[in-house]
Amino acid sequence: MDEAGEKVVSSAQLAGRCMVNAAQVRKDLAYFGEFGIRGVGYYVKDLLADIKRILGLNREWRMAVIGVGNLGSALLSYRDFLKQNYKIVAAFDIDPPKVIGRVSEKLGKPVEILHVNRLKEVAKERLIEIGLITTPPSEAQKVADMLVDAEIRGILNFAPTQITVPEGYVVKDVFFTTILDNLAYLLSNYNEGRR
Amino acid sequence: MDEAGEKVVSSAQLAGRCMVNAAQVRKDLAYFGEFGIRGVGYYVKDLLADIKRILGLNREWRMAVIGVGNLGSALLSYRDFLKQNYKIVAAFDIDPPKVIGRVSEKLGKPVEILHVNRLKEVAKERLIEIGLITTPPSEAQKVADMLVDAEIRGILNFAPTQITVPEGYVVKDVFFTTILDNLAYLLSNYNEGRR
Repeated sequence: MDEAGEKVVSSAQLAGRCMVNAAQVRKDLAYFGEFGIRGVGYYVKDLLADIKRILGLNREWRMAVIGVGNLGSALLSYRDFLKQNYKIVAAFDIDPPKVIGRVSEKLGKPVEILHVNRLKEVAKERLIEIGLITTPPSEAQKVADMLVDAEIRGILNFAPTQITVPEGYVVKDVFFTTILDNLAYLLSNYNEGRR
Repeated sequence: MDEAGEKVVSSAQLAGRCMVNAAQVRKDLAYFGEFGIRGVGYYVKDLLADIKRILGLNREWRMAVIGVGNLGSALLSYRDFLKQNYKIVAAFDIDPPKVIGRVSEKLGKPVEILHVNRLKEVAKERLIEIGLITTPPSEAQKVADMLVDAEIRGILNFAPTQITVPEGYVVKDVFFTTILDNLAYLLSNYNEGRR
């Protein structure tokens, strides 16, 4: 809404966008303080800044992609990351033709692809806090262990396999098939409901 | 486990993999019938078939990718889909150089990229039930409308914008930045916990 130049938003409008009810929006926001102005609503810019602060998003997060196949390349050129202060500052692979000289030129600044054995050294230099695993599943745990060794505490795992990390590290999985399973289940149930 | 050749699994082993407790696993499965054998556990092959049946996953789902940029190409060659009976049977774009002749050769069978104005016709011919939107956000709603017009009832939306569909259609969003927001929040809180 801020991008669209909207200045003020009501809880009802917010509720409509989020598909919840307006009372819930007011209640949830009130939990963190007084943001709204009675009879007016919320100032879009202020509310955005407040929510970012609450969620810990008022800062930059520096990320590395490990595995520059199709998905890794797609993430390297994913514009929405930059808009939200997620910055990919390094990319790693193990495949020499990829490592030598290939860069992503889709974003303003090209990202050089380095050999994964430089992960720990580069993580320190470039203050990397989040690693995106986009390797084949067979390599995912090995990469997770390397991220842990480099003290990169946040992992977004796109490899369709479970990985384990020690306490103090956080893994979020993005399993496309699991999301499709959910969609397929909803489609199946809807069919049954109609019969 | 089936792929690894394992024949039998206990509720404790299942619980360990899912990071829940064994009693919960037994209770959840018992809700759908009697699958386990006391003192033995579950037969892996049988349990897999039963769960697939329960979740409506014991069939093939035919899918189309709309938008063959980096992410669309990545999905076209995403091996895990095939393993799970999700089959991409068509790919669409609007960009002539992509539409003419370019195919994905990563999987066994190449997928021809068609102009998006053939979506409705091809959806019927190829019995497409799920559409994956991988266009820029500015085009996502337009594509969603075309999917609805083609009566493709399931949508997996990768474009970072909200889309709306009529009742009877199901949308699942895959917003990488939203997942990162969640990870960033957990990392921030963990930091605070340590201070």
